[in-house]
Amino acid sequence: MGLTIGVDIGGTKIAAGVVDEDGNILATCKVPTPPTPEGVIDAIADAVRTVSADHDVEAVGIGAAGYVDDKRATVLFAPNINWRHEALKDKVEQRVGLPVVVENDANAAAWGEYRFGAGQGHDDVICITLGTGLGGGIIIGNKLRRGRFGVAAEFGHIRVVPDGLLCGCGSQGCWEQYASGRALVRYAKQRANATPENAAILLGLGDGTVEGIEGKHISAAARQGDPVAIDSFRELARWAGAGLADLASLFDPSAFIVGGGVSDEGDLVLDPIRKSFKRWLIGGQWRPHAQVLAAELGGKAGLVGAADLARQG
Amino acid sequence: MGLTIGVDIGGTKIAAGVVDEDGNILATCKVPTPPTPEGVIDAIADAVRTVSADHDVEAVGIGAAGYVDDKRATVLFAPNINWRHEALKDKVEQRVGLPVVVENDANAAAWGEYRFGAGQGHDDVICITLGTGLGGGIIIGNKLRRGRFGVAAEFGHIRVVPDGLLCGCGSQGCWEQYASGRALVRYAKQRANATPENAAILLGLGDGTVEGIEGKHISAAARQGDPVAIDSFRELARWAGAGLADLASLFDPSAFIVGGGVSDEGDLVLDPIRKSFKRWLIGGQWRPHAQVLAAELGGKAGLVGAADLARQG
Amino acid sequence: MGLTIGVDIGGTKIAAGVVDEDGNILATCKVPTPPTPEGVIDAIADAVRTVSADHDVEAVGIGAAGYVDDKRATVLFAPNINWRHEALKDKVEQRVGLPVVVENDANAAAWGEYRFGAGQGHDDVICITLGTGLGGGIIIGNKLRRGRFGVAAEFGHIRVVPDGLLCGCGSQGCWEQYASGRALVRYAKQRANATPENAAILLGLGDGTVEGIEGKHISAAARQGDPVAIDSFRELARWAGAGLADLASLFDPSAFIVGGGVSDEGDLVLDPIRKSFKRWLIGGQWRPHAQVLAAELGGKAGLVGAADLARQG
Amino acid sequence: MGLTIGVDIGGTKIAAGVVDEDGNILATCKVPTPPTPEGVIDAIADAVRTVSADHDVEAVGIGAAGYVDDKRATVLFAPNINWRHEALKDKVEQRVGLPVVVENDANAAAWGEYRFGAGQGHDDVICITLGTGLGGGIIIGNKLRRGRFGVAAEFGHIRVVPDGLLCGCGSQGCWEQYASGRALVRYAKQRANATPENAAILLGLGDGTVEGIEGKHISAAARQGDPVAIDSFRELARWAGAGLADLASLFDPSAFIVGGGVSDEGDLVLDPIRKSFKRWLIGGQWRPHAQVLAAELGGKAGLVGAADLARQG
Repeated sequence: MGLTIGVDIGGTKIAAGVVDEDGNILATCKVPTPPTPEGVIDAIADAVRTVSADHDVEAVGIGAAGYVDDKRATVLFAPNINWRHEALKDKVEQRVGLPVVVENDANAAAWGEYRFGAGQGHDDVICITLGTGLGGGIIIGNKLRRGRFGVAAEFGHIRVVPDGLLCGCGSQGCWEQYASGRALVRYAKQRANATPENAAILLGLGDGTVEGIEGKHISAAARQGDPVAIDSFRELARWAGAGLADLASLFDPSAFIVGGGVSDEGDLVLDPIRKSFKRWLIGGQWRPHAQVLAAELGGKAGLVGAADLARQG
Repeated sequence: MGLTIGVDIGGTKIAAGVVDEDGNILATCKVPTPPTPEGVIDAIADAVRTVSADHDVEAVGIGAAGYVDDKRATVLFAPNINWRHEALKDKVEQRVGLPVVVENDANAAAWGEYRFGAGQGHDDVICITLGTGLGGGIIIGNKLRRGRFGVAAEFGHIRVVPDGLLCGCGSQGCWEQYASGRALVRYAKQRANATPENAAILLGLGDGTVEGIEGKHISAAARQGDPVAIDSFRELARWAGAGLADLASLFDPSAFIVGGGVSDEGDLVLDPIRKSFKRWLIGGQWRPHAQVLAAELGGKAGLVGAADLARQG
Repeated sequence: MGLTIGVDIGGTKIAAGVVDEDGNILATCKVPTPPTPEGVIDAIADAVRTVSADHDVEAVGIGAAGYVDDKRATVLFAPNINWRHEALKDKVEQRVGLPVVVENDANAAAWGEYRFGAGQGHDDVICITLGTGLGGGIIIGNKLRRGRFGVAAEFGHIRVVPDGLLCGCGSQGCWEQYASGRALVRYAKQRANATPENAAILLGLGDGTVEGIEGKHISAAARQGDPVAIDSFRELARWAGAGLADLASLFDPSAFIVGGGVSDEGDLVLDPIRKSFKRWLIGGQWRPHAQVLAAELGGKAGLVGAADLARQG
Repeated sequence: MGLTIGVDIGGTKIAAGVVDEDGNILATCKVPTPPTPEGVIDAIADAVRTVSADHDVEAVGIGAAGYVDDKRATVLFAPNINWRHEALKDKVEQRVGLPVVVENDANAAAWGEYRFGAGQGHDDVICITLGTGLGGGIIIGNKLRRGRFGVAAEFGHIRVVPDGLLCGCGSQGCWEQYASGRALVRYAKQRANATPENAAILLGLGDGTVEGIEGKHISAAARQGDPVAIDSFRELARWAGAGLADLASLFDPSAFIVGGGVSDEGDLVLDPIRKSFKRWLIGGQWRPHAQVLAAELGGKAGLVGAADLARQG
């Protein structure tokens, strides 16, 4: 199969792109995410038509946040868009006249990294996406593993602290409450509140208040040596690395790939995660260990991955 | 392939058996586990020769506790026997003149249940073994998943309590410290110590002391309504079910199979585990759920599974 | 000294009462809590004038939520009313022409119980108040112990779960997130959500939805045998009792008094707390233990206690 | 009253000393701790006679590990010596012909610091002793507070991690498992095991093995910049400071005094504890805070404190 289209549905915008067999993006377009469920479907169809105007495409892969059923056709539940048992595949196929595959967005991004990014050459890869929340995907034996009902790899919601922080999912102590961009901001705010004298750089980068601290300030402040910012990354890494050690006990992959906005900071966040991973790994000297790699495709992983999954059928 | 031999190496005894294609055991023998690493290998060879005397066997599968490498040839580390990078496959093949496959014992048991026990008809199954410790195996897409380096499915050592109980593996807060036969006994002893008036039946089944409480007393006492025994099972189930909910978030299997000595108690332990599993499951109403099934093969699962893995080559 | 006035400032209403030396309330009035800080002070003065119209009173004691300084004059911080370093004593004295003592409301309630309620005859008593949140007071050697700066006995904010639930105070894992009326409702909602089939009675008492569950429904449902309601009280007791065991290790009082709205349920909540307390107590058999008593004065404890503290000067 | 004798019963030796009204030690002797309960009593009497030979002493104060009853006469339970309801006061009085007061050793040390060490000038002081374990004492209103039954201030056994590490007391998650000399060694061993490359200095100070790491090596290595040693102190401080923040919420003292062998390291351990204390303190800006002070009397605090308590009668 030749060219396919990948669609990445985000909370604020929808991105579509024509992707070739080597993962190159030949054309793209972005539109704001409409407020209604039906509007989103129309917008997807419009975007597909736009990018395919000058290309001969054969299929469409859509990455969406939420639960996607095992037939890769229906979105069972989407946290951001009000989709409940939405027959997304059918509706988009009717509008665009191309075969459509629907996939969880973190799964799509994992597949993108496995095929064209940091995971090339590995048969067994676990990807985690440290964005606002924490998602991921599982590749075992060169296949994306979606689970019996399509909802595997919900990494963000394993319980790492009994009776811990409330999560949007209704449970408590979920990993994404401790290892995610949102957690990083919470760490920084708590520390800046308790010891503002150690957060002078960090506070100076924003509006001067603890409430005004944003993720980008924390990265910049950490690079300038701000103690609170550095300690916040350290806390994030403590939880991220310990969780990866658990995933190593379960999946024993040859590599972990860490993606998402937080990973854009590179070794600033990767090195402490590697250190923490090693700290918590079980059976250290008696077994070979997975590498912890930085994702390579950045924000395009989901789009490229979705397109490639559509190509594979 | 026709008949194969399964060998199950336990801490106190080695069991070998001739197994047919349907998982039936045609002949068995048991010998005490010798104290030396080399002695164990000789004993395995002797046992294989004994059970194969009257049968035409084609291969041998060995299940052993510990890390087994990805070639299923070398035991990297065995906690009970002093094997460190032991070339078990080669040594046994030299002695018995048959092709040998080495497998982690919990993996072998998982495979046995998948093929001939509670897992029949399921493509994606997670088995957990609640014995003295907690082990398990992963079947995805009808294949045993061993990880890149052969050491996947170390369920007992995921961290469920940060800064929790010390584990024999050197880490803290490992799941098997909270969900295992050993944990059950600890729960009962702690409770009997604090409130002996609620443990009259339990204490009466042993030697009357808290120290004398054993696993079998707890089961019997729970069936007779002993409050401490019932509460101890409840605590075990609280941790077992919560862990299964995590595994559901990760693997999304169609079924969990709960085996090991603790599961011999049937619904006494399975029902509270199912309830706890449901309590902690994420995304409840929006996704289909795995069943939680009792293992069917009992103590034979490992031997039968090892034999079948040898048959598959 | 003869008669004094106690004032209890709540989030929705202000109660004032004339109290005699034996803790009897001779006259009372209630007014809604005004929305402005200054308005509250005027309302206090009005209420004092109203109840003292027919009585010869000599002093006023005011119980207020928040930090009160060691001179019992200034409210350093009040969570509900916007008082920050508010000179409450001076302002009220100017308005009513009587000596005024300001006290933390939970301290006042503890003193009330110690003098006229469940604590009579004890020299060393710890009171905890399970209301919406969790507060308390410390009596050692027949004196209320307020700490060097007036802010002792903030029981609700000791950390019982590292990295636990976010608290309104900005910290995480505070005791009141696990043992309070608010926690009880959360327990019930979480359980009703996970296993609605076990919450039929509970759901039937409200509007039928999980969101509609209120504290009063949980008590009523527990008395009718609703499994979710009973389990919710059990969870509350698990945390309340474990915390009391910690306080026993620290203070070694002769009695604990459990007050607040949750304690109105009597043995429904007290018995599981006693059981949990005993479960977690350290050094069990080698030391005498405090009793766990139900408060006797109900909602009047704060008013009566504040009046008595004013009498003592 | 003039001179009194203080006796400090340790696990390996018994120290006795004549102490004047200003806390000066005029004469001392040390003897090994005998192996039998009765032998210890004889040794105490001998030591008292030895040091009092040249001094006119009027009373004896004995500090002993364990529970001491509210009459300060009977050791209810001693963890190291096999005393169970031992009438220590009577037995020693019979042998030495002087009035005897028995006190918990950590209480005695707290009193010593309050009277002659870091606590001078404070009315409300909490002392914690970071030795092998964690003990402490409570001074409120210039009085040692022993609780109703004599067993208050068992700081080491408040639960800081639910389902946490097993403690010698039979409970789990006790503070002394996370903040004590023993905990420090565990932190260093775990880290040196996981990342030996970061423990080169530390390992070089002992016998080169992880097992050979002792407390003194960790201090020395930390001063030389060893990452594992520094991180181990940091972890200790994380737990010590968080616990002090809890004690501040409960007792609101004007000062904390940190003693015990770990505190001999001075600011190496005190500074991180102060930082962690500030990090976890509740209600930060709205209330005055206790200072965190280093103990000043070192190992003599218990002896001097016991002597002074005997003087006070």
